Amino acid sequence: MSVKQYIQNNQEKFLNELFDLLRIPSVSADPKFKNDVFAAAEFVKDSLEKAGADNVELCQTAGYPIVYGEKIIDPSLPTILVYGHYDVQPADPYELWDSPPFEPVIKKTPRHPEGAIFARGSADDKGQFYMHVKAFEAMMAENAMPCNVKFMIEGEEEVGSANLDIFVKENKEKLKADVVVVSDTHMISLEHPSVTVGLRGLAYMEVEVTGPNRDLHSGTYGGAVANPINILCKMIASLHDENNHITIPGFYDKVEEYSKAYRDNLNKAPFDLEAYKKELDIADVHGEVGYTTIERVGIRPTLDVNGIWGGYTGEGAKTVLPSKAFAKISMRLVPNQDHKEIAKLFEAHFKAIAPKSVKVKVTPHHGGAAAVVSTETPGYRAADLAIQEAFGKKAIPTREGGSIPICALFQQELGLDPILLGFGLDTDALHSPNEHYGVKNYLMGIETIALFFKHFKNEVVQ
Amino acid sequence: MSVKQYIQNNQEKFLNELFDLLRIPSVSADPKFKNDVFAAAEFVKDSLEKAGADNVELCQTAGYPIVYGEKIIDPSLPTILVYGHYDVQPADPYELWDSPPFEPVIKKTPRHPEGAIFARGSADDKGQFYMHVKAFEAMMAENAMPCNVKFMIEGEEEVGSANLDIFVKENKEKLKADVVVVSDTHMISLEHPSVTVGLRGLAYMEVEVTGPNRDLHSGTYGGAVANPINILCKMIASLHDENNHITIPGFYDKVEEYSKAYRDNLNKAPFDLEAYKKELDIADVHGEVGYTTIERVGIRPTLDVNGIWGGYTGEGAKTVLPSKAFAKISMRLVPNQDHKEIAKLFEAHFKAIAPKSVKVKVTPHHGGAAAVVSTETPGYRAADLAIQEAFGKKAIPTREGGSIPICALFQQELGLDPILLGFGLDTDALHSPNEHYGVKNYLMGIETIALFFKHFKNEVVQ
Repeated sequence: MSVKQYIQNNQEKFLNELFDLLRIPSVSADPKFKNDVFAAAEFVKDSLEKAGADNVELCQTAGYPIVYGEKIIDPSLPTILVYGHYDVQPADPYELWDSPPFEPVIKKTPRHPEGAIFARGSADDKGQFYMHVKAFEAMMAENAMPCNVKFMIEGEEEVGSANLDIFVKENKEKLKADVVVVSDTHMISLEHPSVTVGLRGLAYMEVEVTGPNRDLHSGTYGGAVANPINILCKMIASLHDENNHITIPGFYDKVEEYSKAYRDNLNKAPFDLEAYKKELDIADVHGEVGYTTIERVGIRPTLDVNGIWGGYTGEGAKTVLPSKAFAKISMRLVPNQDHKEIAKLFEAHFKAIAPKSVKVKVTPHHGGAAAVVSTETPGYRAADLAIQEAFGKKAIPTREGGSIPICALFQQELGLDPILLGFGLDTDALHSPNEHYGVKNYLMGIETIALFFKHFKNEVVQ
Repeated sequence: MSVKQYIQNNQEKFLNELFDLLRIPSVSADPKFKNDVFAAAEFVKDSLEKAGADNVELCQTAGYPIVYGEKIIDPSLPTILVYGHYDVQPADPYELWDSPPFEPVIKKTPRHPEGAIFARGSADDKGQFYMHVKAFEAMMAENAMPCNVKFMIEGEEEVGSANLDIFVKENKEKLKADVVVVSDTHMISLEHPSVTVGLRGLAYMEVEVTGPNRDLHSGTYGGAVANPINILCKMIASLHDENNHITIPGFYDKVEEYSKAYRDNLNKAPFDLEAYKKELDIADVHGEVGYTTIERVGIRPTLDVNGIWGGYTGEGAKTVLPSKAFAKISMRLVPNQDHKEIAKLFEAHFKAIAPKSVKVKVTPHHGGAAAVVSTETPGYRAADLAIQEAFGKKAIPTREGGSIPICALFQQELGLDPILLGFGLDTDALHSPNEHYGVKNYLMGIETIALFFKHFKNEVVQ
């Protein structure tokens, strides 16, 4: 039986196993799910062992463990390092989910006529890293492993991978490989398979604006005492100018300006603006003047408020002038923008623009550098060939707006260019209610990954 | 025994009874306290009956009942209508209370060296309307009622008094009186007793800004799709110009500009800016350029965000570009500004400034007109004389920033100028955590109210 045959024969099993993993609410950002995150790590460990990996272990960190496992069939053959994460984003707001986030179900959608798995983590990243475990299982079952593999599946990607950073730096020998492959991105569509070759970096900040030392009656004090919500809004508003350029001094200093030829080429990727607006139900897109939508998410840095809160947010009306207002603000960065430097620029600027009537506290959350991947490597060529064999057409190299900060870590610490072999779609509602992942994407992903192993070995050993 | 003696002998009883009332969490804004609001109405009914009122009833409305009771000792004597409210503001955020909001305790504070009652509603308005019930009890017990009284205590003041409006219009004969007295404001201090002669009106709006039809991944879409939080901040920020004038077209059209003499007189009220800033722990006040703090809260309209929320507000970081953002925005109005007209101006402007990339919904909550009370009436003179007798000094007429929209209702529908005989302090944390009301203020208030009855009768019947 071939690897492809094995995958076809085991579709139902592969889906059921993934469902079991998706039922574990491994939300790393929220301490109340602590036991579940640990349970997910155990699940991954068991899966790797059952698939045939050796030396499987939970590598303890200051936070959640990193699951490691390997199969060295021949030290002289090339080694593929697989990275993924078993933690998921918080599922809030729960009320916007059509089915419970941790009870996976398959439903059809316009973009997934053959069905998609609805569950938090289905696409990001449980459904995607688990393809590697299953592709590995298939190759092992069929005695068809073409090269070595090492798995490193972490549980803190959604909260900044701080402990992975330490782990990688301390375990360079253990993690030695010829390529690292990550399935945590999306492709344009199954009809236009693509490989991500650029990712944005991230600086994520939390700000707190304090006016008076207690909540006040807005009648007695309104108009005389700084309202921290009004002030916070004014400060946030001022972070973009009328052209939607970011106003933080120095923010663009290291941002590369691309040639017209480069931008023209980027804009050749299949993209239907009308369909995009219709799908999101928006009358217009909104972004930096002078750039197309593809450019805005691909090659330009951005600043978004991810959350804001303050004052009375319950039902009805409460005439309070609150003491405090808060926001979570993140910036997507492009290559050369250092996320720590940007965090510092943000903090200095945000404090500088605060009026004397309030106090401001700025706390950086996690951050990460942007990444650009060369298409002139054995890894990229192997990915392209695997896609050609599975999908019948060449991969389109794309630049994606999201951030996988650990890509820069792999480049710097392990000297490995990551291959971003993602199979989700941009409409899969990652980080949103009703996250889903196409059943066909999952199964074709498993097949493509097995093909990637074959082609990578051929590209390296010639 | 004199009325004063009766009050002194019953201090402990008066406090204990108020505590029982404060233990009922009658939050009208939140449906989960529905039974408690009804329980508070029953409590008020019982109290009036026990104090000696006749025809006590719960007047049913579409919302919470209005408690009515009366004592007509002689139809030829003047009648005082007492208004108050038994509902309270929500107690959120609970975690900022030093003691539970519905478990009253007496603690000393710098401004209340003889102790203050800490509980939601202690000052607003349970502790204040209950003074009237107790003054009435004392006068009845001592056979010293100088004139008639009618009580009208409602349960929806904190949510806009919509049903009181209907009740008053439909019961003009029943409510016929010579004056209406309301204890729901504050005085400067026990050393500087004052009577409020001006109140601001209120227009309270809720806004919803919708960007994309679902929460999105801020990496994949950030910078290309309008973020409703960023947009909402920009819209809110634009509602004030650089001088903190409100930018809504037509907003100031009916705002009276006062003469220098008037403003100079207003600014003569005892006010210590340094103490004010210190007490609130702010480095500077913040308001409309060209006006003093007293003017900003007394004679100028304002716009405050009372609550804002959107996106991820939990612990840690979530890189979401949310679908929606919300805010509660209220405007304090001055005489001649019609709250319904202002609500319309706000709505039109807020929709006009929204970019095409978002949808905006504006919902008005309750509103009410501003009120100015003449000092040339028997009611005001009686209040002044009562204060002189109780405090040993003349009352200072003041203008307060808060709103009691029903004042305008009483003026229009009943032809009565309300006497705003409040005994709280501006530092009593109304609408805030740790709301409190001075024990001495409560007891002196009861005494002053009984004196007001005596002086009012004398002022009218000469």
